[in-house]
Amino acid sequence: MNIILLSGGSGKRLWPLSNDVRSKQFIKIFRTEDGTYESMVQRVYRQIRKTDADATVTIATSKAQVSAIHNQLGEEVGISVEPCRRDTFPAIALACAYLTDVQGVDPEEAVVVCPVDPYVEEDYFQALKELGEQADKGEANLVLMGIAPTYPSEKYGYIIPESEDNISRVSCFKEKPDAQTAKAYIDQGALWNGGVFAYKLKYVLNKAHELIDFADYQDLFDKYGTLTKISFDYAVVEKEENIQVMRFAGQWKDLGTWNTLTEAMKEKSVGDAVMNEHCKNVHIINEMDVPILAMGLQDVVISASPEGILVSDKEQSSYIKPFVDAIDQQIMFAEKSWGSFKVIDVEEESLTIKVTLNAGHKMNYHSHKNRDEIWAVIQGTGRTIVDGMEQRVKTGDVITMQAGCRHTIIAETELKLIEVQLGKEITVHDKQKFPLENE
Amino acid sequence: MNIILLSGGSGKRLWPLSNDVRSKQFIKIFRTEDGTYESMVQRVYRQIRKTDADATVTIATSKAQVSAIHNQLGEEVGISVEPCRRDTFPAIALACAYLTDVQGVDPEEAVVVCPVDPYVEEDYFQALKELGEQADKGEANLVLMGIAPTYPSEKYGYIIPESEDNISRVSCFKEKPDAQTAKAYIDQGALWNGGVFAYKLKYVLNKAHELIDFADYQDLFDKYGTLTKISFDYAVVEKEENIQVMRFAGQWKDLGTWNTLTEAMKEKSVGDAVMNEHCKNVHIINEMDVPILAMGLQDVVISASPEGILVSDKEQSSYIKPFVDAIDQQIMFAEKSWGSFKVIDVEEESLTIKVTLNAGHKMNYHSHKNRDEIWAVIQGTGRTIVDGMEQRVKTGDVITMQAGCRHTIIAETELKLIEVQLGKEITVHDKQKFPLENE
Repeated sequence: MNIILLSGGSGKRLWPLSNDVRSKQFIKIFRTEDGTYESMVQRVYRQIRKTDADATVTIATSKAQVSAIHNQLGEEVGISVEPCRRDTFPAIALACAYLTDVQGVDPEEAVVVCPVDPYVEEDYFQALKELGEQADKGEANLVLMGIAPTYPSEKYGYIIPESEDNISRVSCFKEKPDAQTAKAYIDQGALWNGGVFAYKLKYVLNKAHELIDFADYQDLFDKYGTLTKISFDYAVVEKEENIQVMRFAGQWKDLGTWNTLTEAMKEKSVGDAVMNEHCKNVHIINEMDVPILAMGLQDVVISASPEGILVSDKEQSSYIKPFVDAIDQQIMFAEKSWGSFKVIDVEEESLTIKVTLNAGHKMNYHSHKNRDEIWAVIQGTGRTIVDGMEQRVKTGDVITMQAGCRHTIIAETELKLIEVQLGKEITVHDKQKFPLENE
Repeated sequence: MNIILLSGGSGKRLWPLSNDVRSKQFIKIFRTEDGTYESMVQRVYRQIRKTDADATVTIATSKAQVSAIHNQLGEEVGISVEPCRRDTFPAIALACAYLTDVQGVDPEEAVVVCPVDPYVEEDYFQALKELGEQADKGEANLVLMGIAPTYPSEKYGYIIPESEDNISRVSCFKEKPDAQTAKAYIDQGALWNGGVFAYKLKYVLNKAHELIDFADYQDLFDKYGTLTKISFDYAVVEKEENIQVMRFAGQWKDLGTWNTLTEAMKEKSVGDAVMNEHCKNVHIINEMDVPILAMGLQDVVISASPEGILVSDKEQSSYIKPFVDAIDQQIMFAEKSWGSFKVIDVEEESLTIKVTLNAGHKMNYHSHKNRDEIWAVIQGTGRTIVDGMEQRVKTGDVITMQAGCRHTIIAETELKLIEVQLGKEITVHDKQKFPLENE
């Protein structure tokens, strides 16, 4: 099976655990059998591998997510990097060009496209496989997955099938309706459109060449910024006459809000948390190093990270976005290709950060124009290169770097350091990268 | 007026803002007219000064609170330091010896004793003054303040006066009753015992000499650890025949729980906090650097500090103590005589701390047996002394100190530094102090 997972943009609806650089799909919130926690993307990837160990998985995403994906899924997973966001049609076209030109997939093969963040069980992946097999048959240009509705939701588009068969031609599509209309659709046998579909690779490649003037993957990548934003539904699905839909009646949840997300949690809390016996339907997700104590609460979610603290009635948590938009805040933590960082102190003319480098990884060789930096190694061993001079470092070593000085650190073991930034205008944009000689 | 303020021990009922080293009376929670915030002890001290600019104020407290008191009230306030906790009779006896032997107060003068943390208005301090004046008259050995009850509380002891006059002889005392009994007392004209009383200094000095064998203040201080724990009520009040009570009918609140404390707050929140319009009777006290967002909550208090986060139904917040006792945690922040510190990162073999020194102040000259330390100055100027070597320091300077090395830092301006501690056994007890030569 060839599968393209669409990994969407940063969402604020799960603040403070999602932010401008970490999307909800990377929050480690689901307890696995061995007692560790996995994220939505890790869960889905593990489930795909279990259903089809040989699946070619390609994640279509933005540059900002590449580090987090490699950290969570390893270096092997295929990533089609969108140079900027241009909605789903350009993203899927780019991923298809990547599959043929970079991965060497035969354009006659079927491809399944689905979002990276549904909360589903293994029958869903079995259904994806069958969806691909149906596309392989070539009975239709597109085969959609139609999800059996569990209630008259106003959140989804509806697919009206021609028959009640497991596989049917599509009669028409309906945009997000009100609840009453949704109920009428469901009575007619309508299915939710969960944005899951399959096609032969050549079908979308041809569509792409019809709508975009490009030679191959590299050319499409290079001109990506000039493309018009357009959704796959609008550019392709709504204009296609020859579509089938395959029913899926298993568990399918869209965990987009704290309310729906906590419903899927196996435990009451993740992280350091205590509740008294008068708490009912309370969930706590604590990514901070200090304890949370909850007493006498009902239907409440508490979530804390270095970005902030949310305490919300579960129903109300769906309306979080405008409040989070109003919070003007620098990024307080992030996963990077080489590890992670967390801001631990903010002053007007200084910023103190805890940096964790994974074993064998290094930062870019870089300099800052407007700030000096101090590194204190608090754990591990490695090497620093400062203005070309290489030096071994270990716990307790201190490295001072003036503004303008080029520097990097290369971790041998896992390496942790406290970085003190000093200057009048400290910003993440003050960074010049340089190639490292002899590395 | 001579006034002794009893500043009680560390309380956990206002966790996470009070902890083993910071008592509730030091939490800055009350907004003043100029927009800044003051603590209970600052509020009471300001109110006393306003009522009687010449009052001799002595705070009877433990060693652990001395730094916080000087930080919040300045260097001028008198402090009678209890070498260890021995309940209220020894504490009041020591403070009285301090008043005569150290402050030179005439034993014929009246002294008023009251807790440091009632939430009261200025009429209360006017009443304290009158209480002292009544004691001056010498009509009774002790004059108590009887607080007009507002409801049949089970939390207070009751004073039964002989008459309904403003000043009356005391008929008897009643221990904390149940609500029904309390109601019966109130119907008889009983008053709450708020632990406020006045006497001539010589009266308590004589009592002290009767019960304790000591020569003077210094002698009492030196043998303080050997004294029996006994309350002033038990040792003196209950045995005294000649007592008057003076009525006080103004506002008097004991802010011992989050529920009562938030009732006294003028604003819904202190610190970085946002509530949506569906929050009703919610209070947020946020001492962290990141925002708290509350949505759709009712009758809830949220409180966050570097020690932890409390989210509690207001009623339930009175039952916090056993839960906090169960949280085994190192001290994460503290006020010191020279400034303050905050733990900003904890690892197995390192601890990173932000230290703020007030201008003109210095740490003790000290060394650690089992840890190396690194200082990075992030703001201000000063001098370090490391193994006797003095050096000027400014923003950006780094000082490294091996275990065993003696060190201090002296702030010229306000000085902030990041201190990285490195070692296998990091504890506050690993500290040897030394005298500083030529300082």
